[in-house]
Amino acid sequence: MEPVDLRELLEQVKAGKLSIDAALELHKPAVADLGFAQVDLQRRQRCGFPEVIYCQGKTNEWIEGVVRKLGEAKQHCLATRVSDEQAAHLATQFPTALQDRIARTFWLPAGALEPALGHVTIITAGTSDLPVAREALVTARALGCNAHLLADVGVAGIHRLLRHQHEFSGADAIVVVAGMDGALPSVVGGLVDCPVIAVPTSIGYGAAFAGLAPLLTMLNACSANVVVVNIDSGFKAGYVAAMIARRAARFD
Amino acid sequence: MEPVDLRELLEQVKAGKLSIDAALELHKPAVADLGFAQVDLQRRQRCGFPEVIYCQGKTNEWIEGVVRKLGEAKQHCLATRVSDEQAAHLATQFPTALQDRIARTFWLPAGALEPALGHVTIITAGTSDLPVAREALVTARALGCNAHLLADVGVAGIHRLLRHQHEFSGADAIVVVAGMDGALPSVVGGLVDCPVIAVPTSIGYGAAFAGLAPLLTMLNACSANVVVVNIDSGFKAGYVAAMIARRAARFD
Amino acid sequence: MEPVDLRELLEQVKAGKLSIDAALELHKPAVADLGFAQVDLQRRQRCGFPEVIYCQGKTNEWIEGVVRKLGEAKQHCLATRVSDEQAAHLATQFPTALQDRIARTFWLPAGALEPALGHVTIITAGTSDLPVAREALVTARALGCNAHLLADVGVAGIHRLLRHQHEFSGADAIVVVAGMDGALPSVVGGLVDCPVIAVPTSIGYGAAFAGLAPLLTMLNACSANVVVVNIDSGFKAGYVAAMIARRAARFD
Amino acid sequence: MEPVDLRELLEQVKAGKLSIDAALELHKPAVADLGFAQVDLQRRQRCGFPEVIYCQGKTNEWIEGVVRKLGEAKQHCLATRVSDEQAAHLATQFPTALQDRIARTFWLPAGALEPALGHVTIITAGTSDLPVAREALVTARALGCNAHLLADVGVAGIHRLLRHQHEFSGADAIVVVAGMDGALPSVVGGLVDCPVIAVPTSIGYGAAFAGLAPLLTMLNACSANVVVVNIDSGFKAGYVAAMIARRAARFD
Amino acid sequence: MEPVDLRELLEQVKAGKLSIDAALELHKPAVADLGFAQVDLQRRQRCGFPEVIYCQGKTNEWIEGVVRKLGEAKQHCLATRVSDEQAAHLATQFPTALQDRIARTFWLPAGALEPALGHVTIITAGTSDLPVAREALVTARALGCNAHLLADVGVAGIHRLLRHQHEFSGADAIVVVAGMDGALPSVVGGLVDCPVIAVPTSIGYGAAFAGLAPLLTMLNACSANVVVVNIDSGFKAGYVAAMIARRAARFD
Amino acid sequence: MEPVDLRELLEQVKAGKLSIDAALELHKPAVADLGFAQVDLQRRQRCGFPEVIYCQGKTNEWIEGVVRKLGEAKQHCLATRVSDEQAAHLATQFPTALQDRIARTFWLPAGALEPALGHVTIITAGTSDLPVAREALVTARALGCNAHLLADVGVAGIHRLLRHQHEFSGADAIVVVAGMDGALPSVVGGLVDCPVIAVPTSIGYGAAFAGLAPLLTMLNACSANVVVVNIDSGFKAGYVAAMIARRAARFD
Amino acid sequence: MEPVDLRELLEQVKAGKLSIDAALELHKPAVADLGFAQVDLQRRQRCGFPEVIYCQGKTNEWIEGVVRKLGEAKQHCLATRVSDEQAAHLATQFPTALQDRIARTFWLPAGALEPALGHVTIITAGTSDLPVAREALVTARALGCNAHLLADVGVAGIHRLLRHQHEFSGADAIVVVAGMDGALPSVVGGLVDCPVIAVPTSIGYGAAFAGLAPLLTMLNACSANVVVVNIDSGFKAGYVAAMIARRAARFD
Amino acid sequence: MEPVDLRELLEQVKAGKLSIDAALELHKPAVADLGFAQVDLQRRQRCGFPEVIYCQGKTNEWIEGVVRKLGEAKQHCLATRVSDEQAAHLATQFPTALQDRIARTFWLPAGALEPALGHVTIITAGTSDLPVAREALVTARALGCNAHLLADVGVAGIHRLLRHQHEFSGADAIVVVAGMDGALPSVVGGLVDCPVIAVPTSIGYGAAFAGLAPLLTMLNACSANVVVVNIDSGFKAGYVAAMIARRAARFD
Repeated sequence: MEPVDLRELLEQVKAGKLSIDAALELHKPAVADLGFAQVDLQRRQRCGFPEVIYCQGKTNEWIEGVVRKLGEAKQHCLATRVSDEQAAHLATQFPTALQDRIARTFWLPAGALEPALGHVTIITAGTSDLPVAREALVTARALGCNAHLLADVGVAGIHRLLRHQHEFSGADAIVVVAGMDGALPSVVGGLVDCPVIAVPTSIGYGAAFAGLAPLLTMLNACSANVVVVNIDSGFKAGYVAAMIARRAARFD
Repeated sequence: MEPVDLRELLEQVKAGKLSIDAALELHKPAVADLGFAQVDLQRRQRCGFPEVIYCQGKTNEWIEGVVRKLGEAKQHCLATRVSDEQAAHLATQFPTALQDRIARTFWLPAGALEPALGHVTIITAGTSDLPVAREALVTARALGCNAHLLADVGVAGIHRLLRHQHEFSGADAIVVVAGMDGALPSVVGGLVDCPVIAVPTSIGYGAAFAGLAPLLTMLNACSANVVVVNIDSGFKAGYVAAMIARRAARFD
Repeated sequence: MEPVDLRELLEQVKAGKLSIDAALELHKPAVADLGFAQVDLQRRQRCGFPEVIYCQGKTNEWIEGVVRKLGEAKQHCLATRVSDEQAAHLATQFPTALQDRIARTFWLPAGALEPALGHVTIITAGTSDLPVAREALVTARALGCNAHLLADVGVAGIHRLLRHQHEFSGADAIVVVAGMDGALPSVVGGLVDCPVIAVPTSIGYGAAFAGLAPLLTMLNACSANVVVVNIDSGFKAGYVAAMIARRAARFD
Repeated sequence: MEPVDLRELLEQVKAGKLSIDAALELHKPAVADLGFAQVDLQRRQRCGFPEVIYCQGKTNEWIEGVVRKLGEAKQHCLATRVSDEQAAHLATQFPTALQDRIARTFWLPAGALEPALGHVTIITAGTSDLPVAREALVTARALGCNAHLLADVGVAGIHRLLRHQHEFSGADAIVVVAGMDGALPSVVGGLVDCPVIAVPTSIGYGAAFAGLAPLLTMLNACSANVVVVNIDSGFKAGYVAAMIARRAARFD
Repeated sequence: MEPVDLRELLEQVKAGKLSIDAALELHKPAVADLGFAQVDLQRRQRCGFPEVIYCQGKTNEWIEGVVRKLGEAKQHCLATRVSDEQAAHLATQFPTALQDRIARTFWLPAGALEPALGHVTIITAGTSDLPVAREALVTARALGCNAHLLADVGVAGIHRLLRHQHEFSGADAIVVVAGMDGALPSVVGGLVDCPVIAVPTSIGYGAAFAGLAPLLTMLNACSANVVVVNIDSGFKAGYVAAMIARRAARFD
Repeated sequence: MEPVDLRELLEQVKAGKLSIDAALELHKPAVADLGFAQVDLQRRQRCGFPEVIYCQGKTNEWIEGVVRKLGEAKQHCLATRVSDEQAAHLATQFPTALQDRIARTFWLPAGALEPALGHVTIITAGTSDLPVAREALVTARALGCNAHLLADVGVAGIHRLLRHQHEFSGADAIVVVAGMDGALPSVVGGLVDCPVIAVPTSIGYGAAFAGLAPLLTMLNACSANVVVVNIDSGFKAGYVAAMIARRAARFD
Repeated sequence: MEPVDLRELLEQVKAGKLSIDAALELHKPAVADLGFAQVDLQRRQRCGFPEVIYCQGKTNEWIEGVVRKLGEAKQHCLATRVSDEQAAHLATQFPTALQDRIARTFWLPAGALEPALGHVTIITAGTSDLPVAREALVTARALGCNAHLLADVGVAGIHRLLRHQHEFSGADAIVVVAGMDGALPSVVGGLVDCPVIAVPTSIGYGAAFAGLAPLLTMLNACSANVVVVNIDSGFKAGYVAAMIARRAARFD
Repeated sequence: MEPVDLRELLEQVKAGKLSIDAALELHKPAVADLGFAQVDLQRRQRCGFPEVIYCQGKTNEWIEGVVRKLGEAKQHCLATRVSDEQAAHLATQFPTALQDRIARTFWLPAGALEPALGHVTIITAGTSDLPVAREALVTARALGCNAHLLADVGVAGIHRLLRHQHEFSGADAIVVVAGMDGALPSVVGGLVDCPVIAVPTSIGYGAAFAGLAPLLTMLNACSANVVVVNIDSGFKAGYVAAMIARRAARFD
């Protein structure tokens, strides 16, 4: 798609090394067309990780089809928001895959993994935030990053956080998961020199409005190093944190 | 209005100590009818403090009229949200009144004040929250309470707050004023054993939505001792904090 | 955590009365780390009451674990939002605990309670607001406060409220629970000289928007002594009311 | 437009009393086409009152044009939301018209008015609600109804309202104008046996959200006889109240 | 409650015709205190119709208790939002009551009804709006008014409405029930000279937001005679329409 | 309803060719009154397609009744949002009808269809958007238009879209169905010279707010040729797209 | 950009008719890079009309720069949302351009225009909606379409609309502009067999929320042929309507 | 604040190398107390960059005071949201500072800067987004990062973006600034393997709701590497992007 590629094609065609039809074929992006899905097999190359399957609203057959296609292409396969029923179906089809029922994830790597790079810490304000945090954990590890979890250190007892400060102050990126007031990322952000990815959760009383309250809190975080992802989106937080951490670590 | 009062009236009328017309008059609430306003002269007795004038949307004449009426009734007169133009008009009419142009308040006590009772600390997250905090300060003092202000100790540098902990840990009630993420009341609430009155301010970037974001944060505060008032309502926070503090202190 | 504590540590270390390791241990906050939870054992000392367990989104095991840990630390244990299934599990494990299935609370005091201090009245606008009001009642009593309930005196029949005025006019703090128009706290606030904690409920027709309407009403209450907590949060209202009432009563 | 009309036309045409062209003309609704406006001259007949001019966003010329057209058609002319600049222009063109600068209304009756019918009371919660209440007052009187105003009897001092109860309990319809918590209509509704038209105003602190809070309160009013109109729409409230009151009174 | 009442009491006490205790008792409003409910037995006298039971969130026992109490006081008993399970319970206890399962209403008149007065027409935009319209119909009739229903004449086929114009143009009040775009009340309002009570319903695709869209439409109706009630509140619309219609008709 | 029609009637009546009663009958719109529904039999003539049945909130009997009435009038019958239970009932009554359980549609044409005119392409961003897209597909074909579907070409892999550009660049109208960020219509709009009908879906994480997020995105599309319909309204998108495409094609 | 283009390039390069550098240059999209803007000179070819300049938030220099660049490329130049100050500046630089100060548009065609194709009718509910309607009018004509305007026929007087039905029933596309209740598009949609583009305006009382109310109304329009554009976006409505109308007309 | 620090203090005190008072002083965080502000002088050490001054709602004197204090502490001073009036004042006091009036920034480095590390690309969808993008640019450079700007490549002409792909595909972090539909970050995210920081701007027509629309779009971005900051917060985006880029580059 980039000029340099096209120049190569043109040169090879001009030199007679390549037929025009072959050149046109090469110029096409690698997509597996399943009818109900266009699996983007080029994403690993473009973005550093294969397409991830979001399972909500999909039939077992659709999910299974994409898993198989990624497997045929020798690409890692991560799926999120896997329902109990989908998990059971996938377990019969892909018995070697790793499924985490708290995180609702499915993980079927394409082969042996490379050594993990970089360090991500995932922190939760409360115990009820654990499922979202686990989704971030599984994702960060799937992306090839070292990741660990520190649970239930919300701001109502700020000393719980401060006594663990040495555990996260050396991280390359931190994910903070919080519902209710969503205040924890602002505090963590003020204690460290790395990016903080804040994830609002839908945990809380009525005026939390299913995650709207902590979402707004986090968007308004007074610490300059806090960025935000969608409500309950542990996946995206783990993804970006791992991307930052690996990038930071790759020249170590 | 209460049975006991009515019983007294009935007994006095029965005993011939009171005419029926006089009894009916006594039974009426004390209200000064100015046409444009019904000044509630009984509020001091019922609620512990006279009616306070909210100046927004009122003409100079309307405000002046209520101030005069409260003065005639020998009641303290506090006015809030006094615009520059209203302030100038009131200054010419009531030169001895105390006006705070940052807090936008007007204060004309009815006479010598009783000694202050109880202690309120007012804390702000940022410097830009000062006008709202000043409104709380003026109000708490007008209600007869000791009050002092601690500014700019927001959670992005949590140590700024912790090093002042001894200044506010002994307060009878604490007002916390914050815009943006509104995270400070949760943290303060977890450090003390008195009620925290949280005041969201309209300070912040776009997604603060003129105070909606910190309002929701505070309503969802994970500390159990945090209650909330309207956006930018330093007045109400100072009022309730002083009410709590005086009540706590009155038997010292 | 405060300078005075640190000074003592330093002096004792300097005097050789304390080893450095012991001093460091003493300086740490008391937290019980259960992996899925960091139980804040210092909260009773800091805030006047132990950590309270919010059960929504937690497994039976997680809740049981925290209850046991508080018990071992000889601290009162209050849990809210206990589901039917959680209640059944807890009943088998802690048969002496008091459970209120309307309020959805669990209460396991650490030993004999001290005599109750102060008076809280809890008022509801309608009969449907009773579950939230009961949560406030249980909480206020757990905090060591005298509390009683006055139900169904909403403003559509204002005389129902006025005839009970003598029952609540002497309270140290009042909790008002209302859904729909949420108008009752404003009226109650204008009749008394103590703080009113307003609790919006999710009761009402469509445009109540699950409690948003009464929440906004209460935040805009025209009576100066009204503060607000989260939708359906009887717990927080009872907590703060008891805190105010005990504080007011402690020197009686 | 109705069958009976058409039947008459058909009969007259059949009987030769009317040409087909004249019949078609008669069948057309009476509309004055000014290009920028289609003045609905039939509205008085259909709805009981002529078209009313809403001035916001209109040029002086457009307003003047409609006023003249209504005058030519011998219809009363009421205009609302008249800006200062529009008012000045109209004053030069129609010096006999009555303008109320607080209510921002313009009133040019087509001739001598019929005696007023029915009684409307307009009640405000605060002094700042007066401009909206005045718009309702002017409108109700323009519609030929007796109307009077009772200001500043909000629920923070409920006795202020109760002492005036005899003034409004005999009304045929009541308009209640309130900002902030918007609680007054619920209380008034519970005291009377006539409809209450509630008007939310944009008066209040931040979380009133320019009238949204009292609007929701009023829609959720727990009194069954309360209906609601748009924020600050004194006009519509006065209009409907007068329509109800005149209807109730017409057989007196 | 009004001065004249109190004067009578005072005169009778003074004259020795009444003991003080008896006078105090007479001065109290008539309320039946059931603990979980304060049944307002005076409402019929004050407001023209007894208290109506809103069943949502109430136990069978609570509802049954209030029904019995109203029965003992010889007052009509109307209940709304009766669930299937509540309906079954009430049917066993009060077999003579009339229940409408589409409207979800319960109706147990206290005796023979007076002849109906006034005319209300209830119009729906679509067939799916019928349950709400039926609630309005039952309510209007319970209040002693003639009422009939015209279904499915929404604005997508405006001629469906116009051909029925003669059926509703003579009504004393009109209820218009509509979901989705909520456009029908504006059109009906422009065709008649009586008040139109608009009821938004929660029927519609996603951006109807459970009735918010038609609610806003109706509040902004460009016809001056349209007032609005809560989403899906057929009850309140029928109540107010009947109140207006009876008032209009009572001198016929 | 139009003048020309009325003129004809008048002329025929005048000429004695038509009785007045017959003329009045002819002048009435063709509506089938079923009590619970007013079937608009004239819509096909006015709008180009018969009334379509929206099944949500309707009983089996109501739906069946309208289907039969349309059948008797020899009009095509399309129904949308058919629940499983409604579908089963309709299948027994109308076994020849075509039902699509993914699209939730029912289609019973009145006879042989005319040849399809014009071309519509329906594009989805993700696989989960397929049910909404299928509703658009069925609708567009029912309206007599050629339509085909291109699934899962969202902007996260923009090349997936670009490689299919030749498939949709010649369409007469394009429907784009997307949830989550709703970004696809803007991109498609910038690639083509025909109208793009954007349909937001309720697919997505928390801050999609059940379709609100993609709805706003699409309303703000930076491409000038993008218009929007309701959330999940595949029906309306297919309807308008077919209307545009047929209109464009009818002179081919 | 499409395969066929690339094939041609490859063939020409293979045949030696084109150098590789020239081929690469030809393959690039035509964009004029001004630093502050990337003028999309290819849009006319791709989308049928050149890039249109949205002036809000831009300096005079930026706007002037784009106008000149389009002029150099011999493309029509339309600009919208031109402020008074921008208009004055542009008038001095491009004195032959047509500016409409009510519509706030600037129009500088690149040369003689082709004959107009197709018919668009633009209808407004009120007089205050005229500026938005004028923007649609100017845009539709700039796109080469016949367009005319029908103002002030809102639903409060539905007969005003019906008497003009013959004027718009033959249009190829209709734009309906309305604020307040936004009800007009539903009614118009039910009268015609062409697409209706609905434009909500920010005209109205408080609960119109600056156009949100009519926006929601229109998205929920019960007529199937109504699509919606952004608030006050006369431009987009005129653009799409003209696109539809020209397409419909091109084979006449 | 961390255990290791405290251990050192204890050891030094024990060894008599440090007095207790000196130890306590060392243990305090470095904060400059100005009364109206608590300047966090330790933030540079904790977070990698000194406190940044947010100027909105502050007096000239307050800002000047903090600038001077940072200068005395030899720390870089960056200020954002500097109004014209504040800028003029600061220019007289700190004539050597760099001010960017489009970005509204003030920059006064403490001395010679270290060589820049890492690469950030800032991309805007439109020309009107430039002020926000410039704030990001100034911030990223102040943090010591190489940064450049690519303007006006929004998705309505996707080829404008693709032809610049080689300019940003090698960046360590990308900031994407967009108003209106906010669709650009999703597209950019799908083309690269580094984090994308999305900044919604308040640019757009009515339904953009001052940035709410693009904010929601970006939170729902279908590309996994997109994170979001507050509306118009170029500052925070530039800050985090530079933090990521420097971290990635530091071992090059």
